Amino acid sequence: MFLFSLLFGKGRGWAQAPDSIIIKKISDEIFTSGQVYKNEEYICKKIGARLTGSEGAEKAVKWTYDLMKSYGFDTVYLQEVMVPHWVRGEKELGKILLPPQSPEGGIKTNNTNVIPPSEGGGAVNIVALGGSIATAKEGLTAEVIEVNDFDELKKLGKEKVSGKIVFYNHPFDVKMIMPFSMYGEAGKYRYIGAAEASRYGAVGSIVRSMTNYVDDYPHTGAMAYNDTFPKIPACAISTKDAEQLSEALKKDSKLKFYMKMNCQTLSDVKSYNVIGELRGTEHPEEIIVVGGHLDSWDLAEGAHDDGAGCMQSIEVLRVLKKIGVKPKRTIRAVMFMNEENGLKGGKAYADAPLPPKGGEKKKASDLIIPPSGGGGAVTHHILAMESDAGGFTPRGFTMSMPEDKKAAILKWKDYFFPYGAYDFTRKGGGADISPLEKQGVPVMELSPDNQRYFIIHHTGRDTFEQVNERELELGAIVMTMMIYLVSEYGL
Amino acid sequence: MFLFSLLFGKGRGWAQAPDSIIIKKISDEIFTSGQVYKNEEYICKKIGARLTGSEGAEKAVKWTYDLMKSYGFDTVYLQEVMVPHWVRGEKELGKILLPPQSPEGGIKTNNTNVIPPSEGGGAVNIVALGGSIATAKEGLTAEVIEVNDFDELKKLGKEKVSGKIVFYNHPFDVKMIMPFSMYGEAGKYRYIGAAEASRYGAVGSIVRSMTNYVDDYPHTGAMAYNDTFPKIPACAISTKDAEQLSEALKKDSKLKFYMKMNCQTLSDVKSYNVIGELRGTEHPEEIIVVGGHLDSWDLAEGAHDDGAGCMQSIEVLRVLKKIGVKPKRTIRAVMFMNEENGLKGGKAYADAPLPPKGGEKKKASDLIIPPSGGGGAVTHHILAMESDAGGFTPRGFTMSMPEDKKAAILKWKDYFFPYGAYDFTRKGGGADISPLEKQGVPVMELSPDNQRYFIIHHTGRDTFEQVNERELELGAIVMTMMIYLVSEYGL
Repeated sequence: MFLFSLLFGKGRGWAQAPDSIIIKKISDEIFTSGQVYKNEEYICKKIGARLTGSEGAEKAVKWTYDLMKSYGFDTVYLQEVMVPHWVRGEKELGKILLPPQSPEGGIKTNNTNVIPPSEGGGAVNIVALGGSIATAKEGLTAEVIEVNDFDELKKLGKEKVSGKIVFYNHPFDVKMIMPFSMYGEAGKYRYIGAAEASRYGAVGSIVRSMTNYVDDYPHTGAMAYNDTFPKIPACAISTKDAEQLSEALKKDSKLKFYMKMNCQTLSDVKSYNVIGELRGTEHPEEIIVVGGHLDSWDLAEGAHDDGAGCMQSIEVLRVLKKIGVKPKRTIRAVMFMNEENGLKGGKAYADAPLPPKGGEKKKASDLIIPPSGGGGAVTHHILAMESDAGGFTPRGFTMSMPEDKKAAILKWKDYFFPYGAYDFTRKGGGADISPLEKQGVPVMELSPDNQRYFIIHHTGRDTFEQVNERELELGAIVMTMMIYLVSEYGL
Repeated sequence: MFLFSLLFGKGRGWAQAPDSIIIKKISDEIFTSGQVYKNEEYICKKIGARLTGSEGAEKAVKWTYDLMKSYGFDTVYLQEVMVPHWVRGEKELGKILLPPQSPEGGIKTNNTNVIPPSEGGGAVNIVALGGSIATAKEGLTAEVIEVNDFDELKKLGKEKVSGKIVFYNHPFDVKMIMPFSMYGEAGKYRYIGAAEASRYGAVGSIVRSMTNYVDDYPHTGAMAYNDTFPKIPACAISTKDAEQLSEALKKDSKLKFYMKMNCQTLSDVKSYNVIGELRGTEHPEEIIVVGGHLDSWDLAEGAHDDGAGCMQSIEVLRVLKKIGVKPKRTIRAVMFMNEENGLKGGKAYADAPLPPKGGEKKKASDLIIPPSGGGGAVTHHILAMESDAGGFTPRGFTMSMPEDKKAAILKWKDYFFPYGAYDFTRKGGGADISPLEKQGVPVMELSPDNQRYFIIHHTGRDTFEQVNERELELGAIVMTMMIYLVSEYGL
């Protein structure tokens, strides 16, 4: 009873000892009875790919809503958001076409631009980038001009680029320690490569896949056009095939590349952010967000990206409730929709972060709250945390917030060290909470080890099998610890 | 030229800046042109299992000798050591035998102790523990008595244990953060479980596999008998089957277990530690050891245990030579033989750590140096570092050494932080260098993340495919950094 009142007595200052006891309870609960791995298996294996606008995304909305309800969170509700609806269509085809006289052999061409792909030599692994237009039905065939970067492209200019497919063969800089840094540096060739190529009259764009590994898996991801220039089809090629294409171009700069993509952008559809919360007992108006994005790319199961972050966020609330913590401040798990190709969920949340009026007892129809516009309510958010860097073993948290708030968090650093979360030096939040960050909300992100991430990121390999139970649990533990401490002491 | 003389000028004090330049060179070399992963593939895929005394171990001796020669180390030589030669023989069989009237069905018994295994229900995954005797040819069949720990065994006493197979169903304590700590706590049931069971008249011993995961892979490992009591066959059972056996025992405590093991201990054979070194330019008599163990268990490829540590140790010397460092102190890569079931290599090295007299130009026959006895020369060892905790992403180093030497190392801590090696708080060296440690040599061990280790440790899963290139490289980088700094400044 003494311990009980020490732990749960209202209005007392909390000494160090009780915090360490709560932390041990959090750790024990997740290590021995954690649901995060089981839930991760469900979202990967029973739901699978969850591209925005897809049936999978819709199922994931319903399932996470039901899951949070089943855990008895104080409120669970949906926030409506209109999202883009891009579909890949039939699997893409890519081929290096060598002229008949080439010593390497290959396919005979009629020197036309319409060459059907066939089995055998020259086939390469490509995927359309999210948001790209399709090629013509018969595919696109053109010469290829390889560049390392935008400077090279600019130097080549219209004369040498026009009518060709631009091939950005910009490798990850493996000298960097963190693969995320490599991604940060190379990512622009995927995102605006097609737009820049089109500026110089290119008819298509190929980007070397975003990974420091050399293998057969092409990596998809978002791209965006520049409205000033024509839209051209944009794909990613596997790193192994990027090297093959580059070698082939060295031998024959006139070779042609065939690509066929069947993707299209349909009309926007209605979707949802899914939100569950534990209401704060002392400062309910101070809201702490912990979230991930519910949508994923369509090539696999969205296991690390970002089933992991969603399931961890739900676990935070589940565990606190399970071990009997009544948080002083409101904690809200948010499953953001559409991070991968639009960020509509994150933007809608920042615009209308309020729970439904009237508290938790609502009819089903009331659970859907319309975006209200107006950002006044975000001043109530004291912290937003995202987990969207993979379900790997945690190494720390990134933080973007004023120095005094950082200092408040760093006071708790020693709690995290034994769990392997030692690094609080890096900046950053997550994409979904960046609209909140812009409004001045302090943000942070779980920072897991990312050495293995770009084997699977945005590829057909992002499956449940790539997730380790203990690593995922450790991430959930340090997230729960941090959210607990902030909910107790504020920021 | 200024930079060159700054970096390689002899006799100057080295300032901080040059160290950071050398560190960047080490990092760049390994990330861009590292050989450690390629070598790891070779030892796993071209050589494979390397149980002490096996053909694989012999091949590994020859190959690592040739490899270090090919890198042009100043001296490469073999140190002879007599090692035990235990062989597993044909694959083991294990079976839960339920009597015919059991509602669970199972195999009909004749109530004899000789029941041949057959296909179907009851088969479980077991492996003999290294050093165990075989069962009789027809196998061993007996009732099973399950215990959680030695206290329970003692309480049961001879009356309840005699004539039975003792089943140690002691799970890893998953509340612990570090799987190595769980292993440290549970390992005794594998190592002396059979000896303790025999004390009370048991006829066999089964130990729950050493892992925090529940799956079908049995984990082998060393065991030792107590000469006072009869030797009895000792095996490990997969965790899934341990739970199955425990459930079956709850329903029918009289069920019998059948085990057949074909292992045997042959005569000791001659083998070798393989040693390569870069001779120190200023203090050649001060020796720094960096090593791993060349032998492995026989069930897979010894990828993490300990191909990784061996290949990383060789990489340390290769890289320093490649980037032009002429170490002030002698650096020695040691491939220890027989860590898994005898530690004969580690002991022999501590007894005779001297290189062949007369320097590097030797006839082939001179490369084999006989154990000389006498430990005087170990006073020349200023540090021994081992890597035998898996080729995973590094998190720090364990250290066992006097406080002033620890303090000297901690001065360099900031160099390691960006590479993810942040934890220097734990004690420990490695098994192979423990004989050196006993003689007062400061020891340390690479401390990688070990959350995934006990999926594969001592099982059929310890293959090259489980090793990540970047994680292995990062380990080699921080090892090389540390060895470089100690070679420059001493301890």
